[in-house]
Amino acid sequence: MEPGRGDRAVVLLSGGIDSSTTLAVAVNDGFETYALSFDYGQRHRCELDAATSVAKLLGAKRHLVLAFDLTRIGGSALTAELEVPKDRTPGEIGAGVPVTYVPARNTIFLSFALAWAESLGAFDVFIGANAVDYSGYPDCRPEFIEAFEEMAALATRCGVGGHRVRIKAPLIDMSKAEIIRLGARLGVDYSLTRSCYDPTAEGLACGSCDSCLLRKKGFAESGIEDPTGYSNSRGP
Amino acid sequence: MEPGRGDRAVVLLSGGIDSSTTLAVAVNDGFETYALSFDYGQRHRCELDAATSVAKLLGAKRHLVLAFDLTRIGGSALTAELEVPKDRTPGEIGAGVPVTYVPARNTIFLSFALAWAESLGAFDVFIGANAVDYSGYPDCRPEFIEAFEEMAALATRCGVGGHRVRIKAPLIDMSKAEIIRLGARLGVDYSLTRSCYDPTAEGLACGSCDSCLLRKKGFAESGIEDPTGYSNSRGP
Repeated sequence: MEPGRGDRAVVLLSGGIDSSTTLAVAVNDGFETYALSFDYGQRHRCELDAATSVAKLLGAKRHLVLAFDLTRIGGSALTAELEVPKDRTPGEIGAGVPVTYVPARNTIFLSFALAWAESLGAFDVFIGANAVDYSGYPDCRPEFIEAFEEMAALATRCGVGGHRVRIKAPLIDMSKAEIIRLGARLGVDYSLTRSCYDPTAEGLACGSCDSCLLRKKGFAESGIEDPTGYSNSRGP
Repeated sequence: MEPGRGDRAVVLLSGGIDSSTTLAVAVNDGFETYALSFDYGQRHRCELDAATSVAKLLGAKRHLVLAFDLTRIGGSALTAELEVPKDRTPGEIGAGVPVTYVPARNTIFLSFALAWAESLGAFDVFIGANAVDYSGYPDCRPEFIEAFEEMAALATRCGVGGHRVRIKAPLIDMSKAEIIRLGARLGVDYSLTRSCYDPTAEGLACGSCDSCLLRKKGFAESGIEDPTGYSNSRGP
C-alpha cells in the first residue's frame, strides 16, 4: 500500500540538520506530520527549542516532546559526566564508536515513534539517520533501520493485521552537503537548527565537537553559508 | 560465550506473576540482577510498589524505575480513558488484540533494558513474556522476541564488537499454572505481586479483568492457594 497525500507520518525531530531536513522531506512527500522529540537528559537541551521552531516553520500537525531520564542509565558523554571530545580529525570521526554514543538511543526513539504511529494510525516513521558524514554510531546504519522495521512488523497490532510500519531514513546515503542543499531547497531555515553536543550556557555552538565539525564541513562543501554562531570563531 | 555465575542481567519487572517469576529464574541462574520497572501512566500504578517489594525479596542488586508518560501517546485502555473489559470468557481472552494492548509497549521496555544492559556491560536481558495464558498481545510472541534480539545486535556498540545481547523469555511456552509452580519453588511470594489492570483506590484487585481472570485460573490449576485479595470476591 503506497501512502496517499495527507496520510500521517511520525517524524523524529532532534532539531539538528538531519532531522529537520527529514521533516521537510516528509512534508514534501505529502504527509501530515507528527514531530516527536525527546527530553532525555541530554546536555544540549537547547536542541528542543530548535525542534519546536523547526516543527512550526515546516507546518508539523503536532509536536510532542516526551521526557525520560537517560542519565539514570548512563554510559554516554551526552548524558553522563564524561568529557565531549573536541577537535577530532575527519579520520578520527566515524572510526569506532565514540563516547558520545548513547546506548540504544535510536532504538528507544524509534520505539516511541512506533507506538505513536500505531496510536495515530500512521504507517510511516521518518528518521534522519545518516551513515556517511556521521559519528560512527551503530544505530545509524541501514542494516539497523531494516532490522528495526522487521521487528516492528511483529511488535504491533497493525503488524498482526498485515499493515507494516515503514521506517524511512531518506538521508541515509547522503553526504552532509547534499543534505543541506536538499533542505535549503525544501525551505529549511538552518539558522533555527542546533547541532552542538556541548553548547555554552547561552546556547552558542562550541564549534569543535564532532557534531559541530560535521556541520561546518557540510556547509563548507554545500556552498551554502553556515548561519551558525560558534563560540570559538567569534572574531576580534 | 555462556554466562558465568555473577554476570549481570537486566530483568524487566512489572510486579506481576510472570515478571516476578522471571526475576527468580535469573537469580537462580546465577546472575547479578538489575530490575527495571516503568512508571508510564498505567492506571495500575500500584504494580510499582509490588515490583519494589519483589526486587527486594529476591535480592536484585538494583531496582530502577524509569518514568515517561505514555498517556500522551494514548491508544490503550491501560493508559487512556477507555473501559477495561471485564468478565470475558477464556475463549475471548487471547482471541485478537484487546483494548488493553499498549502500542509497542514491550518494544519500548526492551529498548530501555537494552540501553541499561549496554551501559552495565550485561549481555542478558530477561522478560516475562508468555504466549500461552496471555492476552493476545503481539509483543509477547516468541517471533517478536527473536526479532528484537536480531535488531539489538545491530543497534549497539557491543553488537558491533560481536557481543550479542540475548533476550531471554524463559516463561514463553509455559502455562500460568506452570509459572506459578516454578516461582513458588524458587521462592517467589506471590502475595507481593499485583496483576490487576483496574484495581480499587485501595489497591485491591478487581477480580474480573483479563489479567485477574488469568491469575485466578493459573492459581486454580496450579494447586497453590491464591493469596490475592479480590474486591469482587469478598464474602458476606
